[in-house]
Amino acid sequence: MAEIGTRGAMMDYPARIARAQAEMARQGVDWLIIAPSSDLVYLMGYPAHASERLTALNVPQGGGEPFVVVPRLEAPRLAERHDLLEILDLRVWDETESPVALLARGLGDSQGKTIAVSDQMWSGFLLKLQEALPGARFVNAEGVIKELRQIKGEDEIVCLREAGRLTDEVWEEFVATNTLAGKTENEAGQILAGLMARRGLGAPAFMIVASGPGSASPHYLTGDKVIREGEAVVFDFGGNIAGYKSDITRTVHVGEPSEEFRRVYAIVEAARQRTYEAVRPGLPCEEVDGVARGVITEGGYGEYFIHRVGHGLGLDTHEEPYMVGGNRTPLRPGMVFSDEPGIYLPGKFGVRIEDTVLCTATGGELLNNARRDLIVMR
Amino acid sequence: MAEIGTRGAMMDYPARIARAQAEMARQGVDWLIIAPSSDLVYLMGYPAHASERLTALNVPQGGGEPFVVVPRLEAPRLAERHDLLEILDLRVWDETESPVALLARGLGDSQGKTIAVSDQMWSGFLLKLQEALPGARFVNAEGVIKELRQIKGEDEIVCLREAGRLTDEVWEEFVATNTLAGKTENEAGQILAGLMARRGLGAPAFMIVASGPGSASPHYLTGDKVIREGEAVVFDFGGNIAGYKSDITRTVHVGEPSEEFRRVYAIVEAARQRTYEAVRPGLPCEEVDGVARGVITEGGYGEYFIHRVGHGLGLDTHEEPYMVGGNRTPLRPGMVFSDEPGIYLPGKFGVRIEDTVLCTATGGELLNNARRDLIVMR
Repeated sequence: MAEIGTRGAMMDYPARIARAQAEMARQGVDWLIIAPSSDLVYLMGYPAHASERLTALNVPQGGGEPFVVVPRLEAPRLAERHDLLEILDLRVWDETESPVALLARGLGDSQGKTIAVSDQMWSGFLLKLQEALPGARFVNAEGVIKELRQIKGEDEIVCLREAGRLTDEVWEEFVATNTLAGKTENEAGQILAGLMARRGLGAPAFMIVASGPGSASPHYLTGDKVIREGEAVVFDFGGNIAGYKSDITRTVHVGEPSEEFRRVYAIVEAARQRTYEAVRPGLPCEEVDGVARGVITEGGYGEYFIHRVGHGLGLDTHEEPYMVGGNRTPLRPGMVFSDEPGIYLPGKFGVRIEDTVLCTATGGELLNNARRDLIVMR
Repeated sequence: MAEIGTRGAMMDYPARIARAQAEMARQGVDWLIIAPSSDLVYLMGYPAHASERLTALNVPQGGGEPFVVVPRLEAPRLAERHDLLEILDLRVWDETESPVALLARGLGDSQGKTIAVSDQMWSGFLLKLQEALPGARFVNAEGVIKELRQIKGEDEIVCLREAGRLTDEVWEEFVATNTLAGKTENEAGQILAGLMARRGLGAPAFMIVASGPGSASPHYLTGDKVIREGEAVVFDFGGNIAGYKSDITRTVHVGEPSEEFRRVYAIVEAARQRTYEAVRPGLPCEEVDGVARGVITEGGYGEYFIHRVGHGLGLDTHEEPYMVGGNRTPLRPGMVFSDEPGIYLPGKFGVRIEDTVLCTATGGELLNNARRDLIVMR
């Protein structure tokens, strides 16, 4: 039943849908409704874009047949998917029909039933479903989905390893062959994007190039600011292999850095390394965050580490599990997440260093290995 | 109060928020909650990405102060937005706080109140809001928003005209300087993307290159298929100027086309032209669709025109108003939408020709003027 999925990876979608059904039974969910999102890619290998035209995979806990609601003009995309058409029914709606009515009819009697909807389904569709099925209880499908997606299979780990390795190559080539002073942030980002495309990493899933005071803004909006001598520059970017994302951050300095910059850089790098070394099955996610926070607080910069230390990574750049205070979920082999401590000094500079890490049976495996020493560029 | 917004356009955001409040009063909406989406760009000029971290603009109908809920690590992005900070309050949440609780507190007593949430807000957030505010009635904010966004202001029309004009240039250069036979669809798309980037149209908002039998799939998933002599190729693509999208489709033939292809091409082009000529204030949207459908049905291909004739265009590539059966909304000056009839013969070929059209006080204005004659490429 294995089939060629997004960009050629071998993924067994019917097996994933069966695992979703098992999890639904465990959690008492009667129907699972999945809108275009990485959840749909995970369960069907179908990279539909969210739009005003409803597409939705509908999976019953047991018994009945899963079905997909799809607009007429996009139905041809699924006509060749024989792996899926063996186990699910295609229900096509025309432009002047109501897809929500079609979907609701397919669910049968929903009185008292628990219906789990995609975390990322548009609220406009959920409101219509709630109106069409007033007797049902609606919950977030994330409860079911995260149990599947947060533990990566070997088929997924292969892609994540390759995405990490190629992204490392992109970074090493970028710093070896470029200068920064005088380039705009967007120009620097475009060079990185070009190197990514050439290695088959696709268009960047995201691209932060944050220079000078902007480097102190963790989710800086990259623009046409010119990079100058004397500035820190944070690069945070990633691409994908078969939909599986890479995510790396490195911080460089243009021209000789100050003593303070060197001190901050060393603390952030120590926090990243200590966090990685702590990874082992059973460690609660919040304690992963705690390791980095401890190192940075000890260094005297605790109040300037203003975000969690990491997030899960897979088909989405941010997904479960999150390495954040309050998350008691224990690490398990197959979890893949970022280790990205940072220190942000408003008006001055910021430093962040990030690798992607796989939790194995015995500890952590780095999916990024690009050089982490302080690089002074021109 | 005008301010530099996304990519430099002058947009008066406080005035837009005031217009939203007037519309809320007309519709009896007490609070408007806007998540990251084009609605947020429209009201605030803030291109935040939807993510698991909640960002939301919250606007009361009158009286109270609008406020924005924003994660700590993204707050620096808004610190310089003095135009907005004069009229709204920034409420920052830390990584271990609940943003939904912060938002719900800001709404005060919501018993019996009507709360309109963004069409595109993630369902996961809506479910949490519904749980936090059980006495409120939740509706789709699209009812309020479309009244604002579907009539473009002069500031917006300037961007849409420029986006259309530059996209025409891209197409004319593409067909004048390229051959297709032997290239993959992705390669052809990358050439178009390069031409768009050079003209400042940004990365493609979307890119369909559909060749051979794939051209009969209106929302074809472009891939590594090689384009061959004897095939039709549909190109449907667009970029943006200051966030405002362009959207054009042209169909070419590689090598001499068949008689049937020529006949179908002529019918589609006649349908497009007749539809454009019919545009005038007061004409219901469904009748715009009806004009194209009439021409194609008369030509004998009615059953192969499997989608509506058009969609609104602005900050989103698809937005209100939709030119579709059942939509009685009358055209009004300032509406901008696509005119894109198509005929799709399964297993053979498809033809679609699309322009963007502005409804003016007296008729239609074409925002695309790239050549529409049948181009035979090599």
